[in-house]
Amino acid sequence: MSESRIIKKDEDFSEWYVKAINDAEILDQRYPVKGFPVYRSWGFKALRKCFRMLEELLEEDGVMPVLFPIVIPEDFLEKESEHIRGFQDEVFWVTHGGREELSKRLALRPTSETAMYPIFSYWIRSYKDLPLKVYQTCTVYRYETKHTRMLIRGREVFWNEAHTAHATWEDAYEHILKTKEIYSRFFDKFDIPYVVLKRPEWDKFAGADMTIAFETIMPDGRSLQIGTIHHLGENFSRAFDIKYLGEDQENHYVSQTSYGISMRVLGAIIGIHGDDVGIVFPPEIAPIKVVVIPIPTDDEKKNEGIYETCRRVKEEISSKTDWEVLVDEREDTPGNKYYFWERKGVPLRIEVGRKEVEGNFVTIVRRDERRRKKVKVDELIDSINLEFKKMHEALREKAYKKFNSMVSEAKTLEELKEIILTKGGFVKVPFCSVDKDGLECADVLKEYGISVGGVRFPEPDEVEDGSKCVVCGKKARYMVWVSRPY
Amino acid sequence: MSESRIIKKDEDFSEWYVKAINDAEILDQRYPVKGFPVYRSWGFKALRKCFRMLEELLEEDGVMPVLFPIVIPEDFLEKESEHIRGFQDEVFWVTHGGREELSKRLALRPTSETAMYPIFSYWIRSYKDLPLKVYQTCTVYRYETKHTRMLIRGREVFWNEAHTAHATWEDAYEHILKTKEIYSRFFDKFDIPYVVLKRPEWDKFAGADMTIAFETIMPDGRSLQIGTIHHLGENFSRAFDIKYLGEDQENHYVSQTSYGISMRVLGAIIGIHGDDVGIVFPPEIAPIKVVVIPIPTDDEKKNEGIYETCRRVKEEISSKTDWEVLVDEREDTPGNKYYFWERKGVPLRIEVGRKEVEGNFVTIVRRDERRRKKVKVDELIDSINLEFKKMHEALREKAYKKFNSMVSEAKTLEELKEIILTKGGFVKVPFCSVDKDGLECADVLKEYGISVGGVRFPEPDEVEDGSKCVVCGKKARYMVWVSRPY
Repeated sequence: MSESRIIKKDEDFSEWYVKAINDAEILDQRYPVKGFPVYRSWGFKALRKCFRMLEELLEEDGVMPVLFPIVIPEDFLEKESEHIRGFQDEVFWVTHGGREELSKRLALRPTSETAMYPIFSYWIRSYKDLPLKVYQTCTVYRYETKHTRMLIRGREVFWNEAHTAHATWEDAYEHILKTKEIYSRFFDKFDIPYVVLKRPEWDKFAGADMTIAFETIMPDGRSLQIGTIHHLGENFSRAFDIKYLGEDQENHYVSQTSYGISMRVLGAIIGIHGDDVGIVFPPEIAPIKVVVIPIPTDDEKKNEGIYETCRRVKEEISSKTDWEVLVDEREDTPGNKYYFWERKGVPLRIEVGRKEVEGNFVTIVRRDERRRKKVKVDELIDSINLEFKKMHEALREKAYKKFNSMVSEAKTLEELKEIILTKGGFVKVPFCSVDKDGLECADVLKEYGISVGGVRFPEPDEVEDGSKCVVCGKKARYMVWVSRPY
Repeated sequence: MSESRIIKKDEDFSEWYVKAINDAEILDQRYPVKGFPVYRSWGFKALRKCFRMLEELLEEDGVMPVLFPIVIPEDFLEKESEHIRGFQDEVFWVTHGGREELSKRLALRPTSETAMYPIFSYWIRSYKDLPLKVYQTCTVYRYETKHTRMLIRGREVFWNEAHTAHATWEDAYEHILKTKEIYSRFFDKFDIPYVVLKRPEWDKFAGADMTIAFETIMPDGRSLQIGTIHHLGENFSRAFDIKYLGEDQENHYVSQTSYGISMRVLGAIIGIHGDDVGIVFPPEIAPIKVVVIPIPTDDEKKNEGIYETCRRVKEEISSKTDWEVLVDEREDTPGNKYYFWERKGVPLRIEVGRKEVEGNFVTIVRRDERRRKKVKVDELIDSINLEFKKMHEALREKAYKKFNSMVSEAKTLEELKEIILTKGGFVKVPFCSVDKDGLECADVLKEYGISVGGVRFPEPDEVEDGSKCVVCGKKARYMVWVSRPY
């Protein structure tokens, strides 16, 4: 795992990304089934931190944890006709139990609408049962034929999916706006830049009235969808007969939403904040926030003082904060230890050697800066807090600067293709339609590997008077964001 | 859900158990695939609390979280011959992806030895990589033909499984003793009584050298296995070629252990501590620890003070503790609210009415006692802490008293059958052998629905001189614990 070869992130992002993940022991890709990753401890702990933060945000909003079965009977999966059309080519099927063939095939959930909603119809009786808001953190399964990619596209997907039911379409829409805020706060915690787009009609979630998506841009210029929110309207409630008795004493179908964020958030954090050395974790997500590294001397007597100081520093931090802190007492050189923890993305390193012990200070090094600073021992916690704050600001500023530099505008197809081919990112272009009518033009872009992400949500970008669709030249009614997506 | 019919726990435990779980909205059993439960919010939160406590205990012991794929290729599942013999009749098979037949059948993991160990062989190179200790909290799948039962036996099993690799058989054995202590501490947190038994040869985990099991007794007298620990020796390391270079510069196979605890722990808590009203949760596991219930008067003006006091009490608790606390302000009678939260098992209720507000006290009621006590507002936290402590003691004392009363001894088969038929529980009986030789006698007991749980571990019970096996009458070399198991 510890190849010393350096790959520059800007020169070959794809290779850099694989190496960063391998070096930090995030995943192991050697499992003998394609698209099924092994999450190693370091990766799983980081993932768990991400998702626990998301869970907290959801629970503050009254969205409650549940766990539904992993299998869905075929007839349930098929109940909503658009939905099954969207998923039928990518479902894994369980057909046998022991030596027996099952009487009904069972799908491994590709998403849980059709697992949850038959049960929602039992839970919802009256308007008093609304809104119903639940989530689960789980894995879903998709028989992807596209190239799989670590933390970005696989056949076993770790995610958090939420599902809600409301009295009216408008209530559900209000909830979508609220969820957009919650997801924004979530990505902000990791300093991930994003744009929120409303997908065109032809690219909605299978069975939805409307899909909005959080999109970021990876350093190679390709866009990455990192979260989606769907307004399902009454499409599923009619298929699964989810009705409530209103205050008006009439029965009504509920209006629903579903939304999700996957392990891609970890892929985005790694891809966006990493540097040539490897991963740079924002403090909130690092499985270990602070690592203390002793720098022994040739004088055994003095070393005792160094190790003691290291342990005291750890105690000091542990007693006053909830930060995970570790003293690396392994037998290895300080330099190797620096490198080891830098590649793992640990946000802050403390060095303690002879000088530090004698001078009653410690040396601290922030992962993103990699610059040494002297800090008095009794000011340590405050100093680290300040460094974490500054680190966030620095990561955020750098990430947004890059993101903004990757958002362009184009007025012609030639201009658009040129930008996509050179720097990539998102390009705002005038476009004829985001209803079914626009599909033909979208298909032309597809030939160049360009995808229509949609219209900025909730406020669309303004269309200049007289603008023409970059493809067909007809009157442009929308400014759409297009990109080469992952 | 709110049937008012009362089922006495002692009279019909089985019906009581189902009703208690339904009333408290722990699970929903109406999912249309047999043995696949839906965990509702209240149930999932309780389960999550249990397992996070277990995870903390494991991580303190250096056992690290990972997540392996849910599918295992057929050839991997078959590598250890005893293992596949044990599981082949209960594996669910994934055979298709989309419209295509897969080239290799994939098993839904029934347990993860054969998923993890091929990867262990990459992770372990030298003695410095040992011990390797990992765990995952996940679901596993077994095509059970036996009757399924909520939180006790299903086809989708929620559990925590740990897997370790050590340099020698003795190191692995040491780890088993340590894990036995960790599991003991875990069950002690919930005041669940248990005995630890070493399984007879014929009832070991498929592929293990040795299996030890934690067993409790449910109120109907049937025993329930709530945790198992396996010494796998070199059986899997030879099959999966997991070797390390020792300090002696030779290659050695590692010696392994695996161990697990499932959602049965929640079933045991519900079954053992519940009363005729419903669930009684020990404070550590309750999703809400304290519920505050306003008792309004006919005088609207006074009610404002009552509601205000309720909210102030909640603030007081939230600011000084990490207890989950809720003020139930729904429109319903206090009596209905008491009953609602009692069935959910909330450990402590606070009542606030006119008298309380005027006298500057609150009334508290512990779930297990259901007795009212006056407490001064400024002594509230201390009082609740004390009540929680007393509640633990009371639950523990009651549970152990019952457990101990259900452990008997018998010297003859007639006596044994009589005890099993009347009060059930565990019966200690002299037995000829726990090696393969004893299987014939065990098969005789099986005809009466009696199973040999094994010999007390690590210290076996003493066998009186001259004792004879309850079945064959030959010299008894062991005192074994037998029972009618779930």
